[in-house]
Parts: sequence; structure tokens; C-alpha cells
Amino acid sequence: MRQNYKMILQYEGTRYDGWQKQGNTGTTIQEKLETVLERLTGEPVEVCGSGRTDAGVHAMGQTANFYLGRKWDAVQLKQEMNRYLPEDIAVISLEYAPERFHSRFHAKKKVYTYQIETGEKCNVFVRRLQYHLEQELDVEAMEKAAKLLCGTADYRSFCGNKNMKKSTVRTVEHINVIRDGSLVVLHVTGSGFLQHMVRIIAGTLMEVGLGKRPWDSMTAILEAKNRQAAGFTAPAKGLCLSGVLYEGDCGR
Amino acid sequence: MRQNYKMILQYEGTRYDGWQKQGNTGTTIQEKLETVLERLTGEPVEVCGSGRTDAGVHAMGQTANFYLGRKWDAVQLKQEMNRYLPEDIAVISLEYAPERFHSRFHAKKKVYTYQIETGEKCNVFVRRLQYHLEQELDVEAMEKAAKLLCGTADYRSFCGNKNMKKSTVRTVEHINVIRDGSLVVLHVTGSGFLQHMVRIIAGTLMEVGLGKRPWDSMTAILEAKNRQAAGFTAPAKGLCLSGVLYEGDCGR
Repeated sequence: MRQNYKMILQYEGTRYDGWQKQGNTGTTIQEKLETVLERLTGEPVEVCGSGRTDAGVHAMGQTANFYLGRKWDAVQLKQEMNRYLPEDIAVISLEYAPERFHSRFHAKKKVYTYQIETGEKCNVFVRRLQYHLEQELDVEAMEKAAKLLCGTADYRSFCGNKNMKKSTVRTVEHINVIRDGSLVVLHVTGSGFLQHMVRIIAGTLMEVGLGKRPWDSMTAILEAKNRQAAGFTAPAKGLCLSGVLYEGDCGR
Repeated sequence: MRQNYKMILQYEGTRYDGWQKQGNTGTTIQEKLETVLERLTGEPVEVCGSGRTDAGVHAMGQTANFYLGRKWDAVQLKQEMNRYLPEDIAVISLEYAPERFHSRFHAKKKVYTYQIETGEKCNVFVRRLQYHLEQELDVEAMEKAAKLLCGTADYRSFCGNKNMKKSTVRTVEHINVIRDGSLVVLHVTGSGFLQHMVRIIAGTLMEVGLGKRPWDSMTAILEAKNRQAAGFTAPAKGLCLSGVLYEGDCGR
């Protein structure tokens, strides 16, 4: 009997070409996972993630599912996976999932964080997770701009894929801008995101914080429905997929 | 007029051969600092640390002092140092110090932390700062053993240098054992430490936590005054010099 498995993953994306497999290079997160699962179970496995993360993007709570030909002991399988996966990919939880559970289609919400260090040096211990801007940011202006970017709207201006044929309407629930000393962290929550969308939001908000754009220009950017209207694509290393929420994931 | 400078440093020790310079290899923290300071000021500089850290050991608050031929703007000098130092070494603060201030001789207390991950995988983001033990620890037994290791005593059994000619009497003020999920963190505070002393304390306490040694054998280990009596030298990567306190550093 085929069994569906749901897992939550943590990874430091620094040395990977992102989530999605690309041929057989072995340098994507998906490939690492599939290779280890195939070695452990002896069967071909396709791991389906809640979404692709770009090269260099990290995850605290990526969610993925996969099918195996039988019910393996989940505790033991997780242990074995963690033993054979590299140090920068960890399986945080692994459990049986209903046959029809799909990590991408059934995701209700995703939470991303973007870390910007405005001081003269990144904290040496978390430097791989931070974008080093090295300039002060006007957080109040960023907060006002962030509010205008929330809601259900056509985010075409914030889409990195020029040839996007499908709908670019998305719902952004919250964008919180939090200052912690010289560190500025964006928390972006939404139902789903277009390619590079969080990084373009981060880049645009940084430009607001630097005084290069007025905070009240956000509505015009959305209305332009043109990538050229928004700001730069913030570097991948500052971005982290914090978590993916599903129906029944209470309160979080 | 010669000016003395005091600085607080953060470094990830992973890729260094420790603090102390060894000829001209350029792979120690001290050499990196001296090279940058010499390049910036045009004069030969000797950086004096509060103590040597071993190869692979990290620091959150190493303290060092050095003399320059004149009073440079400390804010600007710190900025320039941070610009030219590698990403894994940061100057947290830099200030003028009294002519006679000596970072090693005047240190009153040092605080070290040792991080042990007992679970099946280290957190991917801080894995370089943790020793992966992968076995459960009896924290209560470790706490009882830790109490017996505190006080003013001859710590010869905990000294990594077999040929130590000077006094091996030291004062260990506290050893706190803190569990945070599957992570066990030791906080060790004392007036000063012998070579490898914190790592041998950590190794011995781990052996207690694993049930390999009874907690009440600590007094006998101290009395043996023999390195063979104590436990293994815990790996460098779990150790971090958290801070160095001087006269007048209040309350910390």
C-alpha cells in the first residue's frame, strides 16, 4: 500500500542551486532529498515541495511530501535521513499524511522573513542569513509603504517572471517591519507568492527606507502592473522561508 | 603620543588556526587583525588578546588591546577595520584605553559557553557552533558534578599542557548546565583557565551525563592532579569565549 509522507525541512541554502532539481547535478535541495530517500528505501522517489526556493535562499520550515511503496517507521526513517543528509539540510518532522495531501496545492499560508543588516558588519554567526546593506533605513516610512502593499491585488509589478501567463493576483496578509538594533527584519505573510515576489517587495521597501522612493508611491507601483515600476530584487541570502501553514495548523 | 586601544571582537573560529600568530601564515585571528591594522595605519602593530583561543574555537566577546603611535578617530578606525577584515571577524567596539591597560593581565573573569546538541541533527544555522553528541545526557547528574568542580582548586587534572611549570590553581566561579530542548549548554565562569581546561571540563561532564562516570567522582579527579584522571577533551567547535570582564565592568 502506497503511503504519503509529510515532512518539515530546515536548510541553509548558501551552497545550493535552490530547491528544484535541474537534471542530475545533485546541487539542489530536492535532489539531495530524493537521492537519500532512494538510497534508504531502494525505490525511486519524487519529493514535492510547497514551493521552489531560489538559489541561496534558506528555510526554517519548508514543507514537502512524497510517496513510498509502504509504511516505513517514520521515526526511524527521519533518523536515517538526518544521518545521510548533509549538515546543511535537516528533517525537523516526518509523519504520515492523507493519501491526497499535496504540500503545494494545500498550502494556505506562507511566511517569509528577510533580514537586512544596516550596521557596518553582520553578526559573524548569522552573516550567511543576512543582506548587508550598510546604510540606515527609515523604518517608519517602510512600515507605511508595507501597509499599502498588503491586501488582494495584482502583483504583476512584483513578479520576476516576465512571461508569466497565469494570474498574478495574490493576497499578502501582513508585512511587518521590525527593527532590532541595527538589524531590520521583514516578515511577509501571504497565501502564495510569485517568482522573486518577496525579494522584490524587500528591495522596494529598502529603497523607501533609503529615501529613494516615497512611501505613498506603492499604490502607483501596483497599478503600473510592470516590473520596471518596482524596486530591485533583494539578494537571495537575506531570504528565509519561515513556515508553511495548512488547514488545521491552528493559531500560528 | 602613543595611544592604547581596547577592542571587543566577535569571530567564527571555524577556518582559523586559533588566536595566536604562528610565523606568517595569515590564518590566525591575531594575524588577520595585525595585518589590517598595519595596512590602515602604516605602522607595525602587536595585538594582545585576553587569552589564546584554540583552533576552531569561536568568540562572542574576545577582548584585545594594541598601541598606535597616535590618537586615531576610534569610530572611523573601527569602521575601516570592519570593512577590511573578513566576514568571520568583527570589531564590536573600539575605544581608547588607559596607557597601562592590558587585556590579559587585567582580565578579572572570563565566561565560556559550550554547546552540545544531543538530538539527531544540529540546527543547520548554528551547526558550526555546536558539538554533535547525538546521545541523551543526564543533565541532573551533570549539574551535581559541575558543582563539585567549582571553587578555588588545583586544576592540574584539567590541564592540556603536560609540561605546565607554573601554578595550576584557578578559581571556577560557576558552571551552569542548561537544557533547551535537545541542546545542552554549559556556561563556565572563572578568573582564568588553563590550556584546554574548559574543553576537558565539558568532556568530563559529558561522560557524567552519559553515565560513564559517577557525578561524585569529580573530587577524586581534582585530587589526582593527573590529566589521565579526567575525561576527554571536547571538540573545539562547541566552545565560544562569551565575554571577558574587567574591573569596573558592572554587574555582568
